[in-house]
Amino acid sequence: MNFAMIEAAAARLAGHARVTPLLNAPLLDAAFGKRIFVKAECLQLTGSFKFRGAWSAVSALPPGTRGVLAYSSGNHGQGVALAAARHGLTAVVVMPSDAPAVKIANTRAYGAEVVLYDRATEDRDAIGAALCAARGLVLIKPYDDAQVIAGQGTTGLDIAAQAQAAGIEAAEVLVCCGGGGLSAGIALALEAQAPQMVVRTVEPAGFDDMARSLSLGVPQENAARSGSVCDAILTPAPGALTFPILHRLAGPGLVVSDDQALQAMALAFAHLRIVLEPGGAVALAAALFCDTSDPVICVASGGNADPALFAASLARFG
Amino acid sequence: MNFAMIEAAAARLAGHARVTPLLNAPLLDAAFGKRIFVKAECLQLTGSFKFRGAWSAVSALPPGTRGVLAYSSGNHGQGVALAAARHGLTAVVVMPSDAPAVKIANTRAYGAEVVLYDRATEDRDAIGAALCAARGLVLIKPYDDAQVIAGQGTTGLDIAAQAQAAGIEAAEVLVCCGGGGLSAGIALALEAQAPQMVVRTVEPAGFDDMARSLSLGVPQENAARSGSVCDAILTPAPGALTFPILHRLAGPGLVVSDDQALQAMALAFAHLRIVLEPGGAVALAAALFCDTSDPVICVASGGNADPALFAASLARFG
Repeated sequence: MNFAMIEAAAARLAGHARVTPLLNAPLLDAAFGKRIFVKAECLQLTGSFKFRGAWSAVSALPPGTRGVLAYSSGNHGQGVALAAARHGLTAVVVMPSDAPAVKIANTRAYGAEVVLYDRATEDRDAIGAALCAARGLVLIKPYDDAQVIAGQGTTGLDIAAQAQAAGIEAAEVLVCCGGGGLSAGIALALEAQAPQMVVRTVEPAGFDDMARSLSLGVPQENAARSGSVCDAILTPAPGALTFPILHRLAGPGLVVSDDQALQAMALAFAHLRIVLEPGGAVALAAALFCDTSDPVICVASGGNADPALFAASLARFG
Repeated sequence: MNFAMIEAAAARLAGHARVTPLLNAPLLDAAFGKRIFVKAECLQLTGSFKFRGAWSAVSALPPGTRGVLAYSSGNHGQGVALAAARHGLTAVVVMPSDAPAVKIANTRAYGAEVVLYDRATEDRDAIGAALCAARGLVLIKPYDDAQVIAGQGTTGLDIAAQAQAAGIEAAEVLVCCGGGGLSAGIALALEAQAPQMVVRTVEPAGFDDMARSLSLGVPQENAARSGSVCDAILTPAPGALTFPILHRLAGPGLVVSDDQALQAMALAFAHLRIVLEPGGAVALAAALFCDTSDPVICVASGGNADPALFAASLARFG
C-alpha cells in the first residue's frame, strides 16, 4: 500500500468518479471564528466517498472476473453495485433483512443482486463465502483492501490540489473514521502531495476505537457494536491495513457527540446547502466544536440521510 | 448587452465566485427515464446564482463609488451584501420589516446595513432613492441591469464547458425565471458557446408571465403578486432588458405546480444530496415532470430554504 497505488487509482477513476467541490461559507466561518473548508463527498456518485474505493477495486480486478460480492447495508454496497454495473460485472450485496427498504431498493436499482439474511439466526460471512465459492465472485472488503484504500485516497489528491488553489498552505484535515480506509488513503495522499497537512480522525463518542488506538499505539476495540446515530461509521476495531498507516501519519483523533453530528447536519443545510448523514457530518462537527487548526479542512463523507432523521435535526437545530 | 460582457464578467468573477458542479444521479435518471443534469448553483456563495450578478455589477463600478443599495428580502440582497463587503464598499439593503428574521440576520452578517420598511405604509422606492441621493449609493437592480445579466450569464459558460466534458452535444437547458436575468444571461452565453443548446424558462403556475410573453411575443403581466411557495421568483412582468433576449433565444416556457417544486426538492435531497428552495427547484421539477429533451440540463438556482418548509416537503414526498 503506497502512494503510487493512489495515483494509479486516480487514473482509473478519471472521468468516472466526480471531482467534488471544496466548499466554504463566510457566515459559518464568522459564526465559529475560523476558516472551515468542506470537501463535499456527499456529492460523489452514490452519495458517498465509497464509490471511489469501489471503483478502484473493481477496475483493478483481473480480466475474466465474473463478479463481485460486498457485505453492506449502506454506502459501500451502493458504491460496489454501481461500480460493478458500469464494468458490466455481476454484483451481489449481502444485506440484513431489516435494512431500510429504501437502501435495499437503491442497491437493487444500481443493478446489484441483493441477498438478504437474518441477523439473529444466520452467519453473514458463511453466506458470502458460499456465494463466492459457488459463483466465482470476488469479495470487495469495505476498508481493509489496498485498492479500496487507494481509491479513497484519491479524495486526498483532490484536497491537496483544491487547498492549494484556495491558498491554504497548512491545515488539519479532519476525516470521519470507521475502519479507517478513507482517513488512511487521504493521509498517504497528503504525505506525498501536501506534507504540511495533518489528518485527524473523527469518531462518534462511544466508538472512538481509532482515537484510543492512535493514543496507545496498539489497536483497541469498541465496547459496543451499535448505539450511535452515526450508523455508517460504527466498526468494531481499526483495520489491519489502515491502522499502521494512521499510526504513522495521523492523529490525535477527535471525538464528537451524536448531537454535535446532528447539529453539523443542520448547519450544513443552512450554510453549505448540502445534505449530510450523521456519520458523514462528524468531521464537520469536529471542525465546529473541537479545538482545531485555522484554517481547517473537513471531509463531508456521505449524504444518504434518512428523511425523517434529517427533518428532526432541522427541527432541533435548524 | 452582448456576449463580450459575459466574458468580461467571467474574468472579473474568476477566483471569487465558485464553479459549481454539474451533477447527475443514476437512480433519478432511471426513475424518470431520461438523463438529467443539474447545475448546482445552490452551492454558489450566498446560496444562489445571485452572487454572480452582484459581483459582476459591483466589480464594474467606477473607482470612487461610495457604496451600493439593493431592494431584496432574499437572495439578491445577500449576493450584493457579500460582493460589496469583499470590495470594501458599503452596502445598504432595503428589506420589508416582515422579512424572515434569519434573512435579515444573514444580510447583516454579510456586512450590509439593513434598512427596514413597512410594506403597508411605506414606499420602498422612495426610501431607496432618498438613501442613494443622500449617501451617494448606486442602485443594483436584481435583473434589469446589463452587468447583472452578464454575471448570471457566466453560469451559461460553465454549463457549456461542463456539458461538453460530460459528452452532451445538444440539450434543452431549463432555467427558473423571475425577471429573467439568469435565463437571459445563460441564453446569450449558450448562443455563443453551445448553439445546439436551447434555454427554456420555468415558472410556477399562476406566475407564468414569461411563458405567456414568449408565446404571444409581447410582455404580459402576472395577475397576482404573491401566492406561490416559490417566493424567490415571483416578479410582476418580464424585464425590459431580459425579454427581448429571451424572445429571440428562448422558449417555449414551461410551468410547474408548487407541489411539483416541493417534490423536486425532496428528490434532490435523496438523489443529489443538495438543498434547494422551492424557487430554486422549479427547473428540476420541469425536467422531471414536463416533456423535455433527453438529455436535459436544469439549473438548481438557489438553496436558501426555510427549514420547516424543507422538513415538510420531506414528510410529504421523501
